[in-house]
Amino acid sequence: MDVHELTRTLHVKNDSKIVMYVADGLGGLPHSPDGLTELETAHTPNLDRLATQGVQGGSIPVLPGISPGSGPGHLGLFGYDPLKYLIGRGALEATGIGFQLQENDVAIRCNFCTLDADGKITDRRAGRIPTEQSHPLAIGLRKIQIPGIEVFVEPVREHRFVVVLRGKGLGSNVLDTDPQATGVPPQDPVAGDHASEQTVEVVQQFLAQARELLSDQPVANFLTMRGFSEKPQLPTYEEVYGLRAAAIAVYPMYKGLARLVGMDIVGTAQSLDEQIDILAENWEQYDFFFIHFKYTDSTGEDGDFQAKVEKTEQFDSALPRIESLNPTVLIVTGDHSTPSFLSSHSWHSVPTLLVSDCCRHDLCQTFSEQESARGGLGTFEAKHLMTLALANAGRLNKYGA
Amino acid sequence: MDVHELTRTLHVKNDSKIVMYVADGLGGLPHSPDGLTELETAHTPNLDRLATQGVQGGSIPVLPGISPGSGPGHLGLFGYDPLKYLIGRGALEATGIGFQLQENDVAIRCNFCTLDADGKITDRRAGRIPTEQSHPLAIGLRKIQIPGIEVFVEPVREHRFVVVLRGKGLGSNVLDTDPQATGVPPQDPVAGDHASEQTVEVVQQFLAQARELLSDQPVANFLTMRGFSEKPQLPTYEEVYGLRAAAIAVYPMYKGLARLVGMDIVGTAQSLDEQIDILAENWEQYDFFFIHFKYTDSTGEDGDFQAKVEKTEQFDSALPRIESLNPTVLIVTGDHSTPSFLSSHSWHSVPTLLVSDCCRHDLCQTFSEQESARGGLGTFEAKHLMTLALANAGRLNKYGA
Repeated sequence: MDVHELTRTLHVKNDSKIVMYVADGLGGLPHSPDGLTELETAHTPNLDRLATQGVQGGSIPVLPGISPGSGPGHLGLFGYDPLKYLIGRGALEATGIGFQLQENDVAIRCNFCTLDADGKITDRRAGRIPTEQSHPLAIGLRKIQIPGIEVFVEPVREHRFVVVLRGKGLGSNVLDTDPQATGVPPQDPVAGDHASEQTVEVVQQFLAQARELLSDQPVANFLTMRGFSEKPQLPTYEEVYGLRAAAIAVYPMYKGLARLVGMDIVGTAQSLDEQIDILAENWEQYDFFFIHFKYTDSTGEDGDFQAKVEKTEQFDSALPRIESLNPTVLIVTGDHSTPSFLSSHSWHSVPTLLVSDCCRHDLCQTFSEQESARGGLGTFEAKHLMTLALANAGRLNKYGA
Repeated sequence: MDVHELTRTLHVKNDSKIVMYVADGLGGLPHSPDGLTELETAHTPNLDRLATQGVQGGSIPVLPGISPGSGPGHLGLFGYDPLKYLIGRGALEATGIGFQLQENDVAIRCNFCTLDADGKITDRRAGRIPTEQSHPLAIGLRKIQIPGIEVFVEPVREHRFVVVLRGKGLGSNVLDTDPQATGVPPQDPVAGDHASEQTVEVVQQFLAQARELLSDQPVANFLTMRGFSEKPQLPTYEEVYGLRAAAIAVYPMYKGLARLVGMDIVGTAQSLDEQIDILAENWEQYDFFFIHFKYTDSTGEDGDFQAKVEKTEQFDSALPRIESLNPTVLIVTGDHSTPSFLSSHSWHSVPTLLVSDCCRHDLCQTFSEQESARGGLGTFEAKHLMTLALANAGRLNKYGA
């Protein structure tokens, strides 16, 4: 049962405003003798005050024990079952750099690599060539011309770049050319179905021209391709929730994910303060606002407990300005946990707080991993959070008579 | 979504060790004015100490309100959705006596019964004939010979025994011959599909010869057959988790269930102490250990509160020896609750404790039904426990980019 089968038919419209305020990688782990997590260590007077008004729960991003990437993590928060809606790796990479995929585009993650004189791979990442060197090489590949096909080559970072092929009749079911090994040549592209046979021909032409263009390079003299994928087909927020939705994010990845579900990307904020400015400026034009704060995740990935504490405090400090707009429903959550103890995304439940005038406040007195585990929302899969948001906003009719 | 679709692709290998220490029927109910369960009454210093380090939750064996038998209870613990993977009753009965089913065997639960002169059933259980009398009768049926078919007849207890038919082309979809009533004759075997028509012919021959062999018996002069079933097709622990798994159990049923998911059965322990000896001896050879303790269930089934308390204390006392091996992940749980108040398996959630260095300890201070209901794992379906075990052992990659 997809949650959207319910929300599609039950949603109604009203003047309510919903704010989803997301600290990426919010949940943590203790690694000190006092047993406190980053969030529990941080001084978060606003979150703790809201905890005395709202209802908390522990949000499971995908399923117990499963650590999600950013794609499934956000799809879950947005209410899209992350086990049903998959974003291919090429499409996610394109999304992450702000490339706006169109229907039937084929997006491909590419690595510059090093071949020896026999055409065998000696380095799958071209010595992790610095971005300053790889960027012009990727741009140089834009010389490639293939009749009837629009070719986009977009630099990413170090050895990584993205290729998007646009044209009619291009299936995306093509096997990786990266053999995941050295001492062997790259694999030829192979179609996984009939609809992708033309794509293989296009890719062969691309690779032949690229080999020529890169032949003089000392290190990055060829490339491998992975994660051939199309634009994921996601129903929009308007369709499934009846919401005019805006995303206010700094990083391209999160703008891209929001765009995939039909949110408008508003503003070009570079800081949290600017994000809240944009929220205020756009308050009347939208029903739903997704505000993304990146740095609780990046400091967690760095394994820097104290930095994550400080970023959590910064996240907290913006709340009064959000509250002053008087949202009908305010949700504070994360797309997954990123404990600095693990320096990676993790499976642990994410403290999640929902405040509305009909949320049924629980006994929680602070906002934390510990309190959320005992909160009134229980432990729940993230894909149900949007339904709770709509309900608290008075935007869902009764199911059945 | 089957959990294994994720774990199959995400699992990685490392040197971690996972111990799942199972007290059968662990969960209980109070039946004294102080309101304490068997577990809460028992003196369990080791479990309570671990509760201050680990994370607890209430495990739902199948679905809320569903009381499982041993088969679904253990399949859930092992991470196999007990609503997807079914073990036929004949196969479970064979498994329970240690019979190793092969592919395409047909296993059948049989009851000795009493027929009157007209061939009508007067007692469906042959007066619950004592095992001492039924055992030689079952052995006597081994005289039955059917061309091209290997026939196994295995005594169980009282009126019950198992027949296994081994041969090519035997389907297992045959309707019960037990009419579930007296005053009527046993039903003829009927095939439920074409593939089982040959099985019916074999069964007819078996029944004709059995009628002859039993004709002189005063009470057990015939038999009925139920639960025709084949060996369940379960993917192995190696396939779905990448784990080399060992089962250390005393009773044949639990060895059999573990064998069905590809665990090795190690040792021939007759006591908990011997089980821990075997655990230590096999520590290097396996990644995962299932240790089964039966007596919390059998005392619960007997309705003996005090005996279940004592068996719970015995279960607790073995923990220091397990801990001394330094498992990466230690799980303490049960396959279901067996409250002595009900003298039967029940649907209540099972206190479940997971200890690892990244488990995110909750506020629980003792191991109990009450604490587990407020623990950091929340209330969860047992089929997710193995995913949590793998995650805590560092054996699962991220899902999606």
